[in-house]
Amino acid sequence: MNLADLGEFNLINRLQSRLKYRSKQVIQGIGDDCAVYATATGTYQIISTDALVENVHFNLKTHPPEKLGLKALAVNVSDIAATGGIPRIAVITLGLPKNFSVTFLDRFYSGLNKASEQYKVAWVGGDTVSSPKHFFINVTILGEVKKNRFFTRKGARAGDKIFVTGTLGDSALGLKILQSRTKINWRGPAASRKKLVQRHLAPTARIKESNWLVKSRLKVTAMIDISDGLAQDLNQVLTTNGVAATLQKSRLPASRHFTVFCRDNNLNPLNYLLYGGEDYELLFTLKAEDVYNLRESIDKSGSPVTQIGEIRKGRGITLIDDRGQSKTLSEPLGFNHFKGRR
Amino acid sequence: MNLADLGEFNLINRLQSRLKYRSKQVIQGIGDDCAVYATATGTYQIISTDALVENVHFNLKTHPPEKLGLKALAVNVSDIAATGGIPRIAVITLGLPKNFSVTFLDRFYSGLNKASEQYKVAWVGGDTVSSPKHFFINVTILGEVKKNRFFTRKGARAGDKIFVTGTLGDSALGLKILQSRTKINWRGPAASRKKLVQRHLAPTARIKESNWLVKSRLKVTAMIDISDGLAQDLNQVLTTNGVAATLQKSRLPASRHFTVFCRDNNLNPLNYLLYGGEDYELLFTLKAEDVYNLRESIDKSGSPVTQIGEIRKGRGITLIDDRGQSKTLSEPLGFNHFKGRR
Repeated sequence: MNLADLGEFNLINRLQSRLKYRSKQVIQGIGDDCAVYATATGTYQIISTDALVENVHFNLKTHPPEKLGLKALAVNVSDIAATGGIPRIAVITLGLPKNFSVTFLDRFYSGLNKASEQYKVAWVGGDTVSSPKHFFINVTILGEVKKNRFFTRKGARAGDKIFVTGTLGDSALGLKILQSRTKINWRGPAASRKKLVQRHLAPTARIKESNWLVKSRLKVTAMIDISDGLAQDLNQVLTTNGVAATLQKSRLPASRHFTVFCRDNNLNPLNYLLYGGEDYELLFTLKAEDVYNLRESIDKSGSPVTQIGEIRKGRGITLIDDRGQSKTLSEPLGFNHFKGRR
Repeated sequence: MNLADLGEFNLINRLQSRLKYRSKQVIQGIGDDCAVYATATGTYQIISTDALVENVHFNLKTHPPEKLGLKALAVNVSDIAATGGIPRIAVITLGLPKNFSVTFLDRFYSGLNKASEQYKVAWVGGDTVSSPKHFFINVTILGEVKKNRFFTRKGARAGDKIFVTGTLGDSALGLKILQSRTKINWRGPAASRKKLVQRHLAPTARIKESNWLVKSRLKVTAMIDISDGLAQDLNQVLTTNGVAATLQKSRLPASRHFTVFCRDNNLNPLNYLLYGGEDYELLFTLKAEDVYNLRESIDKSGSPVTQIGEIRKGRGITLIDDRGQSKTLSEPLGFNHFKGRR
């Protein structure tokens, strides 16, 4: 079956029937000029948008459609998490080549549906357009924050401690494995490779950890999600606030799979911990006086959060190794989307 | 200057400095993971998204970048108008080929800025991604409606009268002129051709007329904006409500330029009035008892609104000509985005 024969209206009906999650806040959902949505009292609305483009952000041969659907929403939920919000509704634009596979789209929508149930986000509309060559996806998400408690990149001050959720670099290794799968025989356990690849294909947005921090009343001074690599996204926080940072090399959190894979294949972990993209972990800064309170809470909640460094006066990022030797990271700190990796 | 040398961050800074319109409802604008926005009391939020793709919706050779910027917002404001809302904020995604012209983008952003001042919409964020071959634009707009007064496609009943704003078919003729400009020597006044082309390049969203109808308290039963042609969009209203329509051929509103161009070049006006896309006029249905009240109000406001037909029981669209002869319009009624024109 191809798109031209199915037709736009049949396609839209077919796809939207797969989206099951409903929200009481949605007054009018998919199928009109606009969706209509009731906001909760005492909230501000927050909005973010993210696009994924075939052969830039994903490859149809290596990205299973269900996972791509999960990822299309997760990367947007991650921005809501970085603001300390609750995700609520989303719209999606599909740019479709005329010969695009309807089966792929069916499975992609299963992923969108699964993601919307996971994150409790209602799909309320979108646009379906023809694209001459490449498939593209654009999701815009709306969420809500409490008026008196949300996180931005602004607010980090010298003396604040720097934390990240989860582990870093897994996604970048996963991408490397995917891209080289027909060329390189990677050493080490297949299970580790699979785990790393999964972290790239279907990242998890840290919405639980973010909402837990909102409720905690801990003095979080700035937050960002790590999508372009720790160094580059930390640098965004630093330049926004006119401050510098020191990072403890030994504290950068790595997964067991990551460590095993780097060791078995002679890769320098630091390259991936600092510069690997698409982790979708949260980076936040916390007033030093609250570090003890955070540790206490973490012990109770079991959420993975690691203190990796400190905000200082000045500019740039300084890395301190196990022997106490320090080194300033040089620009460029990450991915230039129009040029490729650093 | 090319995008790779300029770099993503410089590009974003450069472009966003062109966007001047500010709104008091915006708590946190461009430059963070999410924008933060305060809603007005007594409102529902409304959301819509629309994409424009190079060589599908526009051609870089014929579409001046400022006009493309205007259009990218106007087509979204048109959806807000069709819902009876006030447009408030918008986010934009750009898909950019690596060698894309920075000058083109500068001028495109001048158009975005002009449009945001015209419609009082604040740009609050977006995403800039690489696209392998074609430039694409996706705009998502947020607006507000009164909780007790907004318009949807649902609600038209037999006996209701059908109205449209403005004139129909101008944009479709404008597109025809643009696409054939090097091949056909069109007859008639150049000024008429220019007017028609402008209607295609930079449509005006009927937000004033919509807001006027909201305030009027007239019994509007359904509304849609005409983007895929009168026949197709009217048919959306009909199928949503399980009703039929009769249209009076002689009442379909045409501009002077449209009439002159069709006459001079031997084109059948009906093809463009019924099936021409991208008019971005509003179609609405009104309880028969209110027709007199609408006429009265139009006389005062001067807004161009024409009664073109009536909702009936049954299915399909029947066209009645000057001699009272009736003809049922056959499917397909408009544009299949994956196949081309009907």
